Amino acid sequence: MDTTSAASALTAPEAITRRRATRKFDASRPLPDELLKRILSLATHAPSGFNLQPWRFLVVRSAASRRSLRACAYNQPKVEEAPVVVVVLGYHTPYQSHLDEIVAQSVALGAYSEEVGKAVRASAYQAQEYVTDRKHWATRSTMLAAATLMIAAESLGVSSAPMEGFEEQKVKAAFGVPDDHSVCCLIALGYSTETPKFPGRLGLSEVCYEDHFGRPWTLGEA
Amino acid sequence: MDTTSAASALTAPEAITRRRATRKFDASRPLPDELLKRILSLATHAPSGFNLQPWRFLVVRSAASRRSLRACAYNQPKVEEAPVVVVVLGYHTPYQSHLDEIVAQSVALGAYSEEVGKAVRASAYQAQEYVTDRKHWATRSTMLAAATLMIAAESLGVSSAPMEGFEEQKVKAAFGVPDDHSVCCLIALGYSTETPKFPGRLGLSEVCYEDHFGRPWTLGEA
Repeated sequence: MDTTSAASALTAPEAITRRRATRKFDASRPLPDELLKRILSLATHAPSGFNLQPWRFLVVRSAASRRSLRACAYNQPKVEEAPVVVVVLGYHTPYQSHLDEIVAQSVALGAYSEEVGKAVRASAYQAQEYVTDRKHWATRSTMLAAATLMIAAESLGVSSAPMEGFEEQKVKAAFGVPDDHSVCCLIALGYSTETPKFPGRLGLSEVCYEDHFGRPWTLGEA
Repeated sequence: MDTTSAASALTAPEAITRRRATRKFDASRPLPDELLKRILSLATHAPSGFNLQPWRFLVVRSAASRRSLRACAYNQPKVEEAPVVVVVLGYHTPYQSHLDEIVAQSVALGAYSEEVGKAVRASAYQAQEYVTDRKHWATRSTMLAAATLMIAAESLGVSSAPMEGFEEQKVKAAFGVPDDHSVCCLIALGYSTETPKFPGRLGLSEVCYEDHFGRPWTLGEA
């Protein structure tokens, strides 16, 4: 099976419902380069405010690096067992470094005219200058990319494990991550040695409200 | 076409690459209840730390509520034009209110034994007590659910528009959102009257590093 072609990929609802946080990866089975590239490329299709794309993916693949990362993540075995762990970073200030390039690309692709591009650039810069909590701003879009990455992986037959159990300062020190980037999560990728059972979810009636906070959603359970 | 069956849904890579932030919704075309329910239900399949599911979806559907929300979102017409706008909330402290229910459900579904459930509960509670920035914690998983929601919608033929242009305090006041919830984003849902052009993305060589921050990823461009 050609796992990199769209034709053989799972539908989105299948990928979303089949994805489970993998507990144990097959350490002997590498993730093919082309597949990893395809998954990361799909992750970059996530949306972001003014298309500023604050996500950065630190791809940890060498055995030595995975060992270092494990030491920053409460010694969790899967960090070393998975063939790839992506350190998902949120870059706080892409509007200061990448806005011109991003707008120029959109104009080149015909998404808008040069004139509109100038206006977009100006309003993006102005809006971004108003954002006070830059870490929070970057984290929001970066986590959209993280979810996209995991759904893409699952649809192409690759298992994932998102992790929030790590010491951010240790990760930053070990991998040279600068102050203007936050570590949003780690995502291990590879092939699971088991099929974790579905742990369940709260019902829609518990997580949805209609038109006002606390007002039950009349559609009820799905 | 039965747009609610998995069989007719787009593959995940198709949904991910075709999704575009909709600028103009068809105000005359409602979103069928069953489809909205299915999209929200799929969104709840996103992963979260200890399965704590901090996302809450405030489904804004009545004309009056959409008008109120528009006033909190810099008067953007699409907030009123879209048949549904989901105010995506991050609930800061589900470990204090929902942990027992969540663990009991997992045990009931056979995801783990009652004994393991007790251990999971204890370590979840302990780990959560260490989290200092609860807004940031809640936002991370909530944005995973937000991305899942948009990919699910696209795969089922429903367009979306994620929005970060809103005044959080106004939204909270207008819709009675309590202090222990943050407004993470708004997502308008419905049917687009146009197909926005792809604005492009930074290349993988610009957003990926290998084994150390700043070290170019040797796989290069996708």
